Amino acid sequence: MTIDRSALAERAQGMIDALASISAEPGRLTRLYLSEEHKAAARLVSEWMRDAGLTVRMDAAGSVRGTLPAGRSAQTTERRLLIGSHIDTVVDGGRFDGTLGVIAGILAVENLRARGVALPFGLEVIAFGDEEGVRFPKTLIGSSTVAGILDTTALDTVDADGVTMSEALRAFGGDPHALDDEAYASDDVLGYLEVHIEQGPVLEQAGKPLGAVSAIASQGRYRITIIGEAGHAGTVPMAVRHDALAAAAEVILAIEAAATKRSADSCVATVGALQVSPGASNVIPGAATFSLDLRAATDESRTTAAAEVRDYLRDVGHRRGVKVSMDAVHEKPVATCAPRLGKAIGGAIERVTGAPPVTMMSGAGHDGQAMVSLTEIGMMFVRCRGGISHNPLEFVEPDDMGVAVLALSETVRTLADDSGQG
Amino acid sequence: MTIDRSALAERAQGMIDALASISAEPGRLTRLYLSEEHKAAARLVSEWMRDAGLTVRMDAAGSVRGTLPAGRSAQTTERRLLIGSHIDTVVDGGRFDGTLGVIAGILAVENLRARGVALPFGLEVIAFGDEEGVRFPKTLIGSSTVAGILDTTALDTVDADGVTMSEALRAFGGDPHALDDEAYASDDVLGYLEVHIEQGPVLEQAGKPLGAVSAIASQGRYRITIIGEAGHAGTVPMAVRHDALAAAAEVILAIEAAATKRSADSCVATVGALQVSPGASNVIPGAATFSLDLRAATDESRTTAAAEVRDYLRDVGHRRGVKVSMDAVHEKPVATCAPRLGKAIGGAIERVTGAPPVTMMSGAGHDGQAMVSLTEIGMMFVRCRGGISHNPLEFVEPDDMGVAVLALSETVRTLADDSGQG
Repeated sequence: MTIDRSALAERAQGMIDALASISAEPGRLTRLYLSEEHKAAARLVSEWMRDAGLTVRMDAAGSVRGTLPAGRSAQTTERRLLIGSHIDTVVDGGRFDGTLGVIAGILAVENLRARGVALPFGLEVIAFGDEEGVRFPKTLIGSSTVAGILDTTALDTVDADGVTMSEALRAFGGDPHALDDEAYASDDVLGYLEVHIEQGPVLEQAGKPLGAVSAIASQGRYRITIIGEAGHAGTVPMAVRHDALAAAAEVILAIEAAATKRSADSCVATVGALQVSPGASNVIPGAATFSLDLRAATDESRTTAAAEVRDYLRDVGHRRGVKVSMDAVHEKPVATCAPRLGKAIGGAIERVTGAPPVTMMSGAGHDGQAMVSLTEIGMMFVRCRGGISHNPLEFVEPDDMGVAVLALSETVRTLADDSGQG
Repeated sequence: MTIDRSALAERAQGMIDALASISAEPGRLTRLYLSEEHKAAARLVSEWMRDAGLTVRMDAAGSVRGTLPAGRSAQTTERRLLIGSHIDTVVDGGRFDGTLGVIAGILAVENLRARGVALPFGLEVIAFGDEEGVRFPKTLIGSSTVAGILDTTALDTVDADGVTMSEALRAFGGDPHALDDEAYASDDVLGYLEVHIEQGPVLEQAGKPLGAVSAIASQGRYRITIIGEAGHAGTVPMAVRHDALAAAAEVILAIEAAATKRSADSCVATVGALQVSPGASNVIPGAATFSLDLRAATDESRTTAAAEVRDYLRDVGHRRGVKVSMDAVHEKPVATCAPRLGKAIGGAIERVTGAPPVTMMSGAGHDGQAMVSLTEIGMMFVRCRGGISHNPLEFVEPDDMGVAVLALSETVRTLADDSGQG
């Protein structure tokens, strides 16, 4: 490639730093949906988009959307290829999660235009305002709006101060009544591409800067409750106990085993939160409640793992004389990346890095989970140090950002070529 | 027996109810050391003791002490047999824990005098003011004072309102500077007897109202910490995780197994409190901290169980790549009941109930753990419903209380006979 990778790396780093300086809290990065900081970040992104030659507007959900018409030629279409990610963060988050994808989109457009590539389709770069779902108890508001699948009951949810999303949206300059009008029709889009940091250790361990995502994991969140019998720690013999925590310990190990034996399906299971009641050192636990987060590359793998956990839980209940229950809090089917887009991304990675691409599942959730309802999706992952994310220690090498911009440009160019041949 | 068991049962029930009405909180029973309620209860107990013919005073630690001189005969001694228990409760406690032992002591004296039994030794019935250790972070204040083993740093500990034990003791009418003078010399006492509710299910399951205690358990409280590595629940493959809670689950099951295989030594182990950090459903646990309460009929059984847990913990640390530690918070050696007193108690139970006595370990702590430093101890347990204690549901059948008073009187008479023969 003739493009100066290090110049792109420097540009990306500057933009990352500029966005990272826009925070609700001094000394750490917190930028929630529809906040003053969100507005300031949206304004900056709008400027960058305009400088890159895009026509910019803020949509009714607070997403920044910059469009570029197709180049003039016989084979153009009005349909658009969408490139996006989000500019909200978690509390005390990292500077690359979300923002890198928006910046990569803008720089890719700039790069394509600088190289004089005339595209046979339109482009739209989108900076979604809510992916993390931190301020309100709903996620993917921006992408769900664009995909036309927003559950409008989300508008009535409230933040920690009792402000409804509807009120916050109006104060921000959005329009709760115009959200329907922001949705694309499937026929008007060609696909959705997103660059995102991996948030895991796979690329780092493989020694590769970029990876092609095969799918965004099938995910289930469950709440498991075990009711045993509290008692005096000194006076109840082991043989007659119904210890809820000991029962939970068995289930936690069974959960770990159920995921480990499905590693080929990238299955992962986590018990991250656990409460013991009454929770005194000298009282046998009468109840234990814990979370289960279960993800896999296929819905089948995830649901069979969940069924296995449920069976084991029932067995523990019988053996130990404890009451058990397992409820699904939230379930999201797998969002499969389109092979057509995956092939374009993989080919672009190979041409830019000179090595065959790593293909991997995304265990984390992304805007693609909403966009897949609208159109085909494709995702590219960027290596992040130690796999650490949602944390001030989140770090991406500037050179990896430069390579990501080049690979994204190359992906768009490949799709343009394919489209020309089609 | 010619004594009217049901009359004794009724007396005991009336006294239990009278004490239970003295509480810091309406609708539930809370009577903490050196409180107004403690004073009112001490006053009532003093009256009962006086009515039973005892000479009563309150000692410097707030314990009510009622003495009866030896009967007039050639073989009398000035040495005293002590009978005691406590009149403080936990927060929202039961009405029998502690108080039953004090009431049984008073009614036994009354019963012996009514039967004209002349004892060749002195008697002292004691109502200790602190056994539970709820108001201040120290336990067994009353009995430690009488036994001469009080750690006087306890006087500087503070309650939830910042009041030191020393200040509270002065306000109560006690004297922090005179505590040393309250201790007995070992030569002046013949032994210590205590009647207490079992606080466990053994007697109920055996269908027996009373049991003879062989020992108060060897007890250790430990704090176990496991430090793993936090991470994103969706992006870190199972094979590279260092999940602190999964490691803890293994250790919890090993703890259960270590106690179960020592059931012949009445070994019991409880993990009652556990904290997971950071404790979010979508974050792999980076740390888990939990309590271990370990008790057994012998120090060896308890310490080998602890050593086994420690070894297993280390093994888990190596296998899972997590840092582990296990610290003893508190360790109390076994307080063995004297065979001489156990035999007297067992014989009395057999004569009163017509059936051979159940001999059992006390898993719960008692004033005997302090008194054993001063003299030989003997304990009698009374059946309680469902083994429930430290709870408003704590319940003892009135008839079982009547039988307990008779068996205690009979124990004292047996010791008097033995003493006469000695």
